[in-house]
Amino acid sequence: MYDDIKAVRGVEDVNNFWKALANHPQTLAQVWSEVKAVMAPGALDPLVKEMVYVAVSATNGCEYCTYSHTAAARAKGMTEEMLGELLAVAALANKTNRLANAYRPPVDDAFRTT
Amino acid sequence: MYDDIKAVRGVEDVNNFWKALANHPQTLAQVWSEVKAVMAPGALDPLVKEMVYVAVSATNGCEYCTYSHTAAARAKGMTEEMLGELLAVAALANKTNRLANAYRPPVDDAFRTT
Amino acid sequence: MYDDIKAVRGVEDVNNFWKALANHPQTLAQVWSEVKAVMAPGALDPLVKEMVYVAVSATNGCEYCTYSHTAAARAKGMTEEMLGELLAVAALANKTNRLANAYRPPVDDAFRTT
Amino acid sequence: MYDDIKAVRGVEDVNNFWKALANHPQTLAQVWSEVKAVMAPGALDPLVKEMVYVAVSATNGCEYCTYSHTAAARAKGMTEEMLGELLAVAALANKTNRLANAYRPPVDDAFRTT
Amino acid sequence: MYDDIKAVRGVEDVNNFWKALANHPQTLAQVWSEVKAVMAPGALDPLVKEMVYVAVSATNGCEYCTYSHTAAARAKGMTEEMLGELLAVAALANKTNRLANAYRPPVDDAFRTT
Amino acid sequence: MYDDIKAVRGVEDVNNFWKALANHPQTLAQVWSEVKAVMAPGALDPLVKEMVYVAVSATNGCEYCTYSHTAAARAKGMTEEMLGELLAVAALANKTNRLANAYRPPVDDAFRTT
Repeated sequence: MYDDIKAVRGVEDVNNFWKALANHPQTLAQVWSEVKAVMAPGALDPLVKEMVYVAVSATNGCEYCTYSHTAAARAKGMTEEMLGELLAVAALANKTNRLANAYRPPVDDAFRTT
Repeated sequence: MYDDIKAVRGVEDVNNFWKALANHPQTLAQVWSEVKAVMAPGALDPLVKEMVYVAVSATNGCEYCTYSHTAAARAKGMTEEMLGELLAVAALANKTNRLANAYRPPVDDAFRTT
Repeated sequence: MYDDIKAVRGVEDVNNFWKALANHPQTLAQVWSEVKAVMAPGALDPLVKEMVYVAVSATNGCEYCTYSHTAAARAKGMTEEMLGELLAVAALANKTNRLANAYRPPVDDAFRTT
Repeated sequence: MYDDIKAVRGVEDVNNFWKALANHPQTLAQVWSEVKAVMAPGALDPLVKEMVYVAVSATNGCEYCTYSHTAAARAKGMTEEMLGELLAVAALANKTNRLANAYRPPVDDAFRTT
Repeated sequence: MYDDIKAVRGVEDVNNFWKALANHPQTLAQVWSEVKAVMAPGALDPLVKEMVYVAVSATNGCEYCTYSHTAAARAKGMTEEMLGELLAVAALANKTNRLANAYRPPVDDAFRTT
Repeated sequence: MYDDIKAVRGVEDVNNFWKALANHPQTLAQVWSEVKAVMAPGALDPLVKEMVYVAVSATNGCEYCTYSHTAAARAKGMTEEMLGELLAVAALANKTNRLANAYRPPVDDAFRTT
């Protein structure tokens, strides 16, 4: 498993997340398989996917994930300006999510039919 | 304020979120100003920003926001395939965030220095 | 238990939350006892406590709780202006929480020693 | 920007959060402007606002924010007893939010009409 | 895929979650495969797994998931008393999580070495 | 209070969580009383309860709680294999919670009537 991770990623050692998952080999195999499939190029490019990962990880407050996926996004070409805009969007979403949760506007019909 | 929202968005009526915010005019003015600035084209294109908004809103479980920003992303060109990939990434991030939270691997030095 | 709830609150019927908890009498008794003790006047007044409850409930996206505690705060004197300011603070906190989660500034020494 | 922060707050140096935001000057300017407006005295006093900030930050598990806003609330007069009551309310809200999420009582009509 | 779901579960129709996932066939296939593997009998019995699912879903406030997994747990033998105790634990955990987040006790050495 | 904690748990010193709660004696007394009642053997055995606690704490990203309750579950007999399966379920739930939040399938009638 580690050899495949190193080959696909072009790295000399796997990072600590994968070593931790090795405590439960089925989980290690399942997660690595899913990461390879989901993060591959498709209708969305890998950098966009990596930035979505950063936004979700910051929303959940996962320290390890925020560090590792910010580094991964930079390795795929994310600039400081792109990171700045990404986090401004994620922060704004976290803010308006709570305004909607509290003021409770009914969902507009137009949004349900698209 | 409503007139500016209608003009910028090219819509005939503002949606229910803005009507709810009108209960506190300072918040309505502040949020609209921030949305215009943050969601404008920049280093990231508006569709990517809208998709990040969907991923964060689904992570937080905000019903109104998930509906409204999914509709907005579709209006900006998001296909079903793009939505499918976006949610697969967001779902995977939510999963690995908790594996990292529980197994607690130390943050790799390489991630801190990039 | 219902009689005590009605007497303490001065209401003619208990609301649906308490009826739902009646499925597990120990939980009903424990929660009612805790609510009475924690929400009573103390170093903080009951309206401040009720507004904190609204802010936490909106953060967690609990629909029932947002409705019930917003109503309770209004019954204790919260005006629309106070609600507007409360939600502006809660929304801002949700936003800056994620900026801190993502940019990861080290905690200033001064904050640890107070 | 730093000079304004130091002047408004009466501090000799800005704390690490603002230095981190300086990576994206638009975000630094926007957040500081919003913090000044939202946290100012109004229908709610600044100490109440600061305590709401602590409750939301603890709910979201933001380490930096919990430290910084607890220190800020103490600087504005929060005693240990007030902190104890604040956290007891926030903890209780987090608990009953999940009981409501799981038992799913319907929202009482009385809560929707106030 | 639907036939396999019906056969494994012994049901006449698949529920709405699977129909929604059909919008993105790769996600439908991946999630169904993972659910079959992860929820199967193992070191933990399926009822315990289903109850863990309910606790997580209530913590996240997912309405659909709370309903569907509570029904699934009941189908596997969960009584009202077991549900009551399950939710009392989940609610308590949500409460003490925030007390720990706010009071920030250092992690005891004994917990790191086990 | 500390003596009772040491006696019930059979430990020589209380852990840091309880020392932190001592800042607000009412909270210390209330939480200890609730923990003793809720975590005691009942319709669910204490190990199952402890594992639910771990799953909720990982979902919320509470570092202290994840460490302390993982240690407690191990002390009650949780093996590495059981931990692996527990976290696989918790991670999967976090993932499908967001797929349901975003695709928004209507709750099946069958789930509401059981």
